Amino acid sequence: MNVDGKPFRSIWTNPDQPDTVFVIDQRKLPHLFEVLELRTWQEARTAIANMTVRGAPLIGATAGYGMWLAVLHGEDLEVIAPELASARPTAVNLQWAIDRQLAVHRAGGDLREEAQRIADEDVEINAALGRHGLDILRDLHRTHPDRPLQILTHCNAGWLATVDWGTATSPIYQAHNEGISLHVWVDETRPRNQGAHLTAWELGHHGVPHTVIVDNAGGHLMQHGQVDVVITGTDRTTRTGDVCNKIGTYLKALAAHDNGVPFYVALPSSTIDWAVRDGVAEIPIEERGPGEVTHLSGWDDDQVRTIRITPPETRAGNPAFDVTPARLVTGLITERGICDASEPGLQALFPEQK
Amino acid sequence: MNVDGKPFRSIWTNPDQPDTVFVIDQRKLPHLFEVLELRTWQEARTAIANMTVRGAPLIGATAGYGMWLAVLHGEDLEVIAPELASARPTAVNLQWAIDRQLAVHRAGGDLREEAQRIADEDVEINAALGRHGLDILRDLHRTHPDRPLQILTHCNAGWLATVDWGTATSPIYQAHNEGISLHVWVDETRPRNQGAHLTAWELGHHGVPHTVIVDNAGGHLMQHGQVDVVITGTDRTTRTGDVCNKIGTYLKALAAHDNGVPFYVALPSSTIDWAVRDGVAEIPIEERGPGEVTHLSGWDDDQVRTIRITPPETRAGNPAFDVTPARLVTGLITERGICDASEPGLQALFPEQK
Repeated sequence: MNVDGKPFRSIWTNPDQPDTVFVIDQRKLPHLFEVLELRTWQEARTAIANMTVRGAPLIGATAGYGMWLAVLHGEDLEVIAPELASARPTAVNLQWAIDRQLAVHRAGGDLREEAQRIADEDVEINAALGRHGLDILRDLHRTHPDRPLQILTHCNAGWLATVDWGTATSPIYQAHNEGISLHVWVDETRPRNQGAHLTAWELGHHGVPHTVIVDNAGGHLMQHGQVDVVITGTDRTTRTGDVCNKIGTYLKALAAHDNGVPFYVALPSSTIDWAVRDGVAEIPIEERGPGEVTHLSGWDDDQVRTIRITPPETRAGNPAFDVTPARLVTGLITERGICDASEPGLQALFPEQK
Repeated sequence: MNVDGKPFRSIWTNPDQPDTVFVIDQRKLPHLFEVLELRTWQEARTAIANMTVRGAPLIGATAGYGMWLAVLHGEDLEVIAPELASARPTAVNLQWAIDRQLAVHRAGGDLREEAQRIADEDVEINAALGRHGLDILRDLHRTHPDRPLQILTHCNAGWLATVDWGTATSPIYQAHNEGISLHVWVDETRPRNQGAHLTAWELGHHGVPHTVIVDNAGGHLMQHGQVDVVITGTDRTTRTGDVCNKIGTYLKALAAHDNGVPFYVALPSSTIDWAVRDGVAEIPIEERGPGEVTHLSGWDDDQVRTIRITPPETRAGNPAFDVTPARLVTGLITERGICDASEPGLQALFPEQK
């Protein structure tokens, strides 16, 4: 997507510096926009480990390029692969990209081309699901063409989390690019504030009208007809259409259901877990550190500062995700099309999974 | 309630300094506990205007004492009354307390005694509703006496917002004081973080076990049986039982309803607006400044600092309250007892309002 009129991806190479991979330092957004150069697999590993890059697809793409950088410097891929994989042990895409590059290497293939292919495939999948989502937005806008379409999103399922387009944001960018008048309510998404930090930054620099709200506000807006549709991403979707996504997604789905607002979830089919049937009962929810709740970072006095926002002795709980039951989801937007959030719905699009 | 073992109210006098009113500087909580002395009606006005004191009942009590301080220094009450009232123009209790003191003054009464009476009445009302709420908590705890009762609350409806006990917290303090094992999930309550700042501070210093969570987390906790009951306060309750309270209350009520968790609202009957029937349609919701969303204050380097947490050019929306429809409210806890959140329910307790 664009950053102030110039097209960007979240990871790229440049013919002028053929041995370098470029990424945006996402730790510094939205306060500073800095491009970081990765020249070794160790630098790629560090970028993944310290969250310079984040988001499953982007982590995968970075690992793909990291494997290429390792080959470039004559490293033994079989030795470094486990080390690279340990950068974020729970990131499924990380191991997937490493394994894919190992296989290409064993077959004597070109790891630079394969890394590019991993990135391009992600872009194409997100572009495809965005085209399907665009149909929904176009139809909704037709019902009241006189005013901007009001979309609410939670967390960052944007191009910064992928290689380009994003998932939840892909229909939004495509609708905006097509000239459909729209406005996005951006949940700040406590505790890590990916909405306020990343989604607001993305939308703003691409020129998409948006307003940041606290996570508490969405229900009130829906009660008063100020939201036409909700679109979120998902970290994991069950074979029955339950959606595990950033904490708080479930509350927005409840409010959408209570107010007759359609609630869509955009996902590449790689995030469907065909082995899980009951999301609430079966998906373990990561409890992250309390510091994400008790402390917050932001900009003051020309630097990023971290402040404490609770009494010093206060305990904090920090479940990172929740599960939205399929009954609250209007539809799933995938690269193959839109379907009901149900086993029959998903199997109609993905018959090979029966 | 107690602060580290010593009983406090949010406003008090002291026979050793007969011309002084003492309040806690709530702007500095939870980072600093400082007592402020008010010696003139102007100082009382400033304390109300700059939110040293906040919460409708405490604002009323402070105004009551402010009128007494004015008399003490020979001011013309008829002249200063409108000036004092302008400190927080929308605070109903402020005007109410000023009018009450004006009437006492005209009748030649003692304004110091009346100020004390205003404060004591508030304490008694909250103690009474707390006794009724205690019955609910005791019954819930009996169903699983082997583990702490899990209570979730939103915002600060605590003793700091009243003179003592609080509203939503009154049953909690009474249950805790009675030895019922309990634990409170404290919603941080963005954007002003009254939960993380004030409720956590109150509960901690009184010794009530609690955990701060982001506002996004409550639905997940309820899905997993980690909340036995929700209790909140309310700024305004309609004659039909709709509840206007801090933004985000509605989302917690939806989650409670979806998971079969009882959702109670504690209120002094003075907050019932008998003229309003449909809360969502009729109650105008205050839109506060965007700075409360884009900036946040906390503790760093031995001082309170304010940081910006959004991109500089980002717009923010900030509706301050929402309305929870009566259908989602299990019951209303008032000083006269507990009733259904409905017109017949409220009229059974308050037949004089028919």
